[in-house]
Amino acid sequence: MIRVGIVGCSGYTAIEAIRLLLRHPHVQITAATSRQADGSTLAQMHPQFTGRVHVLVEDLSPTQIANRCDVAFCCLPHAASAPIVCELLDRDCRVIDLSADYRLSNADLYQKWYGEKHPDPGRLGITPYGLPELFEDQIRESNLIANPGCYPTSAILPLAPLVREGLIDTSSIIVDSKSGVSGAGRTPKIGNLFPEVNESFAAYGVGTHRHQPEIVDIIARFTGTTPNLIFTPHLVPMDRGILSTVYCRPCSGATANSLRMCLENFYRDAPFVRVVGHLPATKHVTGTNYCDITVRENDSWVILLSVLDNLIKGASGAAVQCLNVMYGLDQSLGLGA
Amino acid sequence: MIRVGIVGCSGYTAIEAIRLLLRHPHVQITAATSRQADGSTLAQMHPQFTGRVHVLVEDLSPTQIANRCDVAFCCLPHAASAPIVCELLDRDCRVIDLSADYRLSNADLYQKWYGEKHPDPGRLGITPYGLPELFEDQIRESNLIANPGCYPTSAILPLAPLVREGLIDTSSIIVDSKSGVSGAGRTPKIGNLFPEVNESFAAYGVGTHRHQPEIVDIIARFTGTTPNLIFTPHLVPMDRGILSTVYCRPCSGATANSLRMCLENFYRDAPFVRVVGHLPATKHVTGTNYCDITVRENDSWVILLSVLDNLIKGASGAAVQCLNVMYGLDQSLGLGA
Amino acid sequence: MIRVGIVGCSGYTAIEAIRLLLRHPHVQITAATSRQADGSTLAQMHPQFTGRVHVLVEDLSPTQIANRCDVAFCCLPHAASAPIVCELLDRDCRVIDLSADYRLSNADLYQKWYGEKHPDPGRLGITPYGLPELFEDQIRESNLIANPGCYPTSAILPLAPLVREGLIDTSSIIVDSKSGVSGAGRTPKIGNLFPEVNESFAAYGVGTHRHQPEIVDIIARFTGTTPNLIFTPHLVPMDRGILSTVYCRPCSGATANSLRMCLENFYRDAPFVRVVGHLPATKHVTGTNYCDITVRENDSWVILLSVLDNLIKGASGAAVQCLNVMYGLDQSLGLGA
Amino acid sequence: MIRVGIVGCSGYTAIEAIRLLLRHPHVQITAATSRQADGSTLAQMHPQFTGRVHVLVEDLSPTQIANRCDVAFCCLPHAASAPIVCELLDRDCRVIDLSADYRLSNADLYQKWYGEKHPDPGRLGITPYGLPELFEDQIRESNLIANPGCYPTSAILPLAPLVREGLIDTSSIIVDSKSGVSGAGRTPKIGNLFPEVNESFAAYGVGTHRHQPEIVDIIARFTGTTPNLIFTPHLVPMDRGILSTVYCRPCSGATANSLRMCLENFYRDAPFVRVVGHLPATKHVTGTNYCDITVRENDSWVILLSVLDNLIKGASGAAVQCLNVMYGLDQSLGLGA
Repeated sequence: MIRVGIVGCSGYTAIEAIRLLLRHPHVQITAATSRQADGSTLAQMHPQFTGRVHVLVEDLSPTQIANRCDVAFCCLPHAASAPIVCELLDRDCRVIDLSADYRLSNADLYQKWYGEKHPDPGRLGITPYGLPELFEDQIRESNLIANPGCYPTSAILPLAPLVREGLIDTSSIIVDSKSGVSGAGRTPKIGNLFPEVNESFAAYGVGTHRHQPEIVDIIARFTGTTPNLIFTPHLVPMDRGILSTVYCRPCSGATANSLRMCLENFYRDAPFVRVVGHLPATKHVTGTNYCDITVRENDSWVILLSVLDNLIKGASGAAVQCLNVMYGLDQSLGLGA
Repeated sequence: MIRVGIVGCSGYTAIEAIRLLLRHPHVQITAATSRQADGSTLAQMHPQFTGRVHVLVEDLSPTQIANRCDVAFCCLPHAASAPIVCELLDRDCRVIDLSADYRLSNADLYQKWYGEKHPDPGRLGITPYGLPELFEDQIRESNLIANPGCYPTSAILPLAPLVREGLIDTSSIIVDSKSGVSGAGRTPKIGNLFPEVNESFAAYGVGTHRHQPEIVDIIARFTGTTPNLIFTPHLVPMDRGILSTVYCRPCSGATANSLRMCLENFYRDAPFVRVVGHLPATKHVTGTNYCDITVRENDSWVILLSVLDNLIKGASGAAVQCLNVMYGLDQSLGLGA
Repeated sequence: MIRVGIVGCSGYTAIEAIRLLLRHPHVQITAATSRQADGSTLAQMHPQFTGRVHVLVEDLSPTQIANRCDVAFCCLPHAASAPIVCELLDRDCRVIDLSADYRLSNADLYQKWYGEKHPDPGRLGITPYGLPELFEDQIRESNLIANPGCYPTSAILPLAPLVREGLIDTSSIIVDSKSGVSGAGRTPKIGNLFPEVNESFAAYGVGTHRHQPEIVDIIARFTGTTPNLIFTPHLVPMDRGILSTVYCRPCSGATANSLRMCLENFYRDAPFVRVVGHLPATKHVTGTNYCDITVRENDSWVILLSVLDNLIKGASGAAVQCLNVMYGLDQSLGLGA
Repeated sequence: MIRVGIVGCSGYTAIEAIRLLLRHPHVQITAATSRQADGSTLAQMHPQFTGRVHVLVEDLSPTQIANRCDVAFCCLPHAASAPIVCELLDRDCRVIDLSADYRLSNADLYQKWYGEKHPDPGRLGITPYGLPELFEDQIRESNLIANPGCYPTSAILPLAPLVREGLIDTSSIIVDSKSGVSGAGRTPKIGNLFPEVNESFAAYGVGTHRHQPEIVDIIARFTGTTPNLIFTPHLVPMDRGILSTVYCRPCSGATANSLRMCLENFYRDAPFVRVVGHLPATKHVTGTNYCDITVRENDSWVILLSVLDNLIKGASGAAVQCLNVMYGLDQSLGLGA
């Protein structure tokens, strides 16, 4: 059994990771940490787990975590995560970091977008980005994985193969994304209260969202080409799900059809990417680790549409998928729909 | 023009009061207060009012409010409200108090359910409860109105006439109520975040909710009979609306039909209570000051169903209705659906 | 492998059954029928199953179904189901009938509430009701299971043990239930359109819903006592979930505590009933086969609260649980949360 | 009083028109028609109007309508509308047509996108498009108004002034729009059932939606320039509201700031267009006739964001606004928020 610790167990990605790991045949959850630990068990903190898990929530040190766990799922906020990740790695505990701390390729980019000096710049750029569809070999060998952002996964999966094959013009790509509210986290804020979000639709972070540089950086890392790409996120009054509508122009000679064939070929053996003919709805993939992608055209534009569950393929499911790769298991283990 | 001040302008009842008052032909909003006043206008605090109201949000003293306003809508939390109400009344500013502070008939009951000594016990029991359908004469004469709770309105309107006429057995009444989330207020709490409430349904405060004694107390005040009544509130994943399902047994000789006729007679001239034949849905009254009531029977029970908009007839609409009564205006002014 | 056929594969219970059966290690779906079969596959009809199941939707005769399947999940409307069930049983195909056709104990009761003569009255009363928590032995031996209604499951599980132990007064029980919209089925009707149901809450079928006699009948069958019980269903604007608030009076000597202990003892070994201390929310059990129950008191009443997922423990999960019992498997197989 | 008839009174735009007209001081609803008329009143058909309107629903001929009404709100489906509009105009009844039949400028365009020969081609191109912000003079003089589509209003209002002033490159404009479900109408279809739409987000009609040519055509009519513009609609799980995210490139010399100033100047006296600094949410305008617009930039793109209530400014509110213009009244009459 792989002994897994949940570091920071109060938020939505942690809850979803616990739910998935409880179904994983080779995993045992051996630690759950929170700075607000008050003697409760995980099941008392999250009543849906009553009778399903028997782990105390504790305020553990990295040493204590490393003693009890083979691998830690770090579900801490960015900036809080990196220092603990360092200590865990030093103590031979492998880490899947669900924060943004190790995703970008260099410390300057991090500082520009996160407004802080990175505490562990040496690992930036060499830490694999946790999309096994693109980086399986690096993931397999690594003790640290930068688990992908939810929006970036929905944009990178449809775009990366097309950019690499030179099928689309990288000078004007627009990613218009829409996400359910769990993506905003579990910290209480007026803006995320039910009566604020429900029956409303709005854009946020227009031109300033940190997932824009992440999308560009990872596409560049995979393809060698840095696209000109803008990203606009919107909030949808639903729990889960992201749909990205990606506008790009095919390069001369390329068509919607050749783009679709490129994606079908690229993802032929990927268990969790489905290139489909119909227009995908987020509900088709809710509760699953799938990302569904389709291709359409309109006038001179090609439109890529992708959907995923932001808490699964966009967060904790990707983490379990990476765990499987890290331990030489079938990528799909514990991720049945 | 009646000069109205909004005391505590950040929450949902305040927002709804502002929206209604802006449509009222004889009202001008002349003050809006908040302890978090930071130089913003009301329209900056609540962008839906952009261009519709030009009032600064200020941290005003009771004297300042009284100087500027004929009447104050106090939208403060219970316990915070009473001391300010006293000061406003002392300065000849009339008050419609949307908190619970002046609803109950005596200080012991208040202390038992609110856990605090009432700071102004002398006004308890003599302050009119703001249901013009039951207490119009007292409201007309008063400088202070205890605006009703949302759940109590939905229970008292169907029950009070039947109890007074002796048509139902008062020894076993059950009020099973369901409310939209705006009733929980605008203070950020994990439990009211969208992903917690959405796609979920739950009871809360079972046997402990403060609206239970309020319902009992006001029915007793109106009828002289203190019913044995229990109340169970539930949270519905929607913005607004309350439906109460009230179970009671008809007294010997009474039938569902005679109960319905009693209600029809009682509310014949009430502009905002509609006794209907169909099963009412909260959506029929959303955005309006109506309370729709119907009567059904099942086995030996009679079932009263009532619906209202918790922010309008259950809060700010009732307040405007009281304002109209206090100033000798048509009850419906500014309350068109 | 157990070969399972889905008879009537277009509705919500069928979709959920397919989803659960795809995760079941000992099951293979070998047929899917629909009168609207047009050459599509199951995955074309329900795009969420793309790549997950490879079965054609066909308009099969009972003989064809029986040839291909060991057991059929009949997901047809009531009245349409019984004739086909008969033919399947005649051809040695076991049946789990998700319609209401075999739930009630006699043909008179069926005719009274369903308005039609029952086509197969001889099996009424002897067909086991598919709650393994109450009727496991009968289910194990039977070729036909009457899969329970969603509301009845939520009412019977908390009530049946208490009635059998004589702990509650059976002369006045009120079941006030609230359900998500998937319970209303997938037939297009104005009343179930999103803009009708969303942001609204209403009761329906007050005093006339067919689940009232089902609850009474099954409690009587299990306990020998026919309770006086009324049932009021309501529609909640959410996809899934039922919460029932059950009001009853403890018999002399009984308390909320002794009722809770009775339930804890009764369900000690039931894998899917959790007697909990907290107030349950439907979201705690969404996507699972659990029914969570708690006990509260208020004045002279005891209040039982139960929650379940109407499509799982209230329909297709119960069917899979019965399948496991019928084939001597662990009740929980394929039903991991 | 202006006597108004509602032709086709069962759908959402009709319901909203009735609600608004009941508040209009100079209007009386004198007829309501439906082919399904069965002797019911409007209030029986739509229970929210109980006690608020006393009009029978009838299956009236155009002559009967014209006898009773000064102006008809035609709320019929496209293609069904034009023949009746002709007959009403022939009988001197003015018409505000809420269908798409008179919006496009010529019969070829209509036939290409609607798949049918237009029955009244002579009025195409000369019938004013019902946006008083752009076409007030024509509306004032006309007996027939083509009431705008909901999506087009959200795209045309931000774009038209910028195109006319030559501030944006018209060779690549993308309109990515998101709408609440009432926009899909009230005809029962599986795809619009609550459990299909709720908790899901999807695009539809990509490259094929009839509002794309409408947007292009009306911008061309107003500015003389035909833009290259693509439009992608999406369905949001909420009742009402449209947000359009419009991507365009400023012409040389133009900036986000100069675009914003252009819009501010253009709409300075428009009572229902608010050019705002904050990011607008649909909830800011729900229940109102406002369209809020803001401007942002990202890399070389300018992003225009607009929100409106699809049933009000996007349909019935615009119709009332046109009515006011047609009768020389204040544009805002009856449209207070």
